[in-house]
Amino acid sequence: MDLTDYIPSVADFPIPGVSFKDITPLLASPEAFRESVDRLIEGTAGLGFDKIAAFDARGFLWAAPMAYQLALPIIPIRKAGKLPREAVSDTYRGEYDDVVVEMHADAVGPGDRVLLVDDVIATGESMRSGCRLVERLGGTVAGCAAVIELTFLGAAEKLTAYPVVSLVRF
Amino acid sequence: MDLTDYIPSVADFPIPGVSFKDITPLLASPEAFRESVDRLIEGTAGLGFDKIAAFDARGFLWAAPMAYQLALPIIPIRKAGKLPREAVSDTYRGEYDDVVVEMHADAVGPGDRVLLVDDVIATGESMRSGCRLVERLGGTVAGCAAVIELTFLGAAEKLTAYPVVSLVRF
Repeated sequence: MDLTDYIPSVADFPIPGVSFKDITPLLASPEAFRESVDRLIEGTAGLGFDKIAAFDARGFLWAAPMAYQLALPIIPIRKAGKLPREAVSDTYRGEYDDVVVEMHADAVGPGDRVLLVDDVIATGESMRSGCRLVERLGGTVAGCAAVIELTFLGAAEKLTAYPVVSLVRF
Repeated sequence: MDLTDYIPSVADFPIPGVSFKDITPLLASPEAFRESVDRLIEGTAGLGFDKIAAFDARGFLWAAPMAYQLALPIIPIRKAGKLPREAVSDTYRGEYDDVVVEMHADAVGPGDRVLLVDDVIATGESMRSGCRLVERLGGTVAGCAAVIELTFLGAAEKLTAYPVVSLVRF
């Protein structure tokens, strides 16, 4: 199965000049969605992680079934102000604007090996920001996983310190 | 297993006077998370649905593993401006402010029976808004499911037209 068939591009969304990768046809196909989850699990199987950090919001869609299948804890990485308890925060330059992300301060500790999961790796800045949060709490980044990687935005150079697993490259 | 043990309250979040239900300890426990997903699947088994509509963002955490397990399509219900193609929208009065939600116009059609999934049913307004989106597209609401129901906010009276399944009531 070629997952690319389930990820059409939408021109000029959310701003002119951007070709947005639409994951909703992938979500609408139970076979393609299952394949994407299973291939993320297979592709990250050698990384030796014991927690899954999930990016709000679309990262939740893949991180949750992976965590369910692997029986691992889910750590939400959310936009500022969404987490109710003490959190660490980090700011990155997103594709369209500055973004502040947070993780609960007790979510990760020394010895934890964390896999970060999102739908898309675009510039790599959000993924790198998530890695900083894990490391600031004393954890180790076991790897970064995403369904889609936009290679022309150069994320690979920003994430050279970590194993990166992606299923579809544009 | 009593899932309530994994859902502590955080006082005065996000605004003074609100007792926020913190689902992150539930996400941090693989056993409790699996139990919550499995109990939502069991509790909704008789409703006869063929699509799962998932509320952005925390609803994604339960809808995605349910859809994975049941091999059903996922329809995201997102805040305004997040979906890239033609969408229907609806506005509701949230607990804290007005919220506009959207669903892709081709996500649901006549004959579809849709289960709506969120983490919390509080006032019931967001769930009812999601029901309006499904019905506006000609679909049938098979039921509304959530991990948590805040009974003191009176959601039950607003959702009498639909079967409601919740795991933990406060």
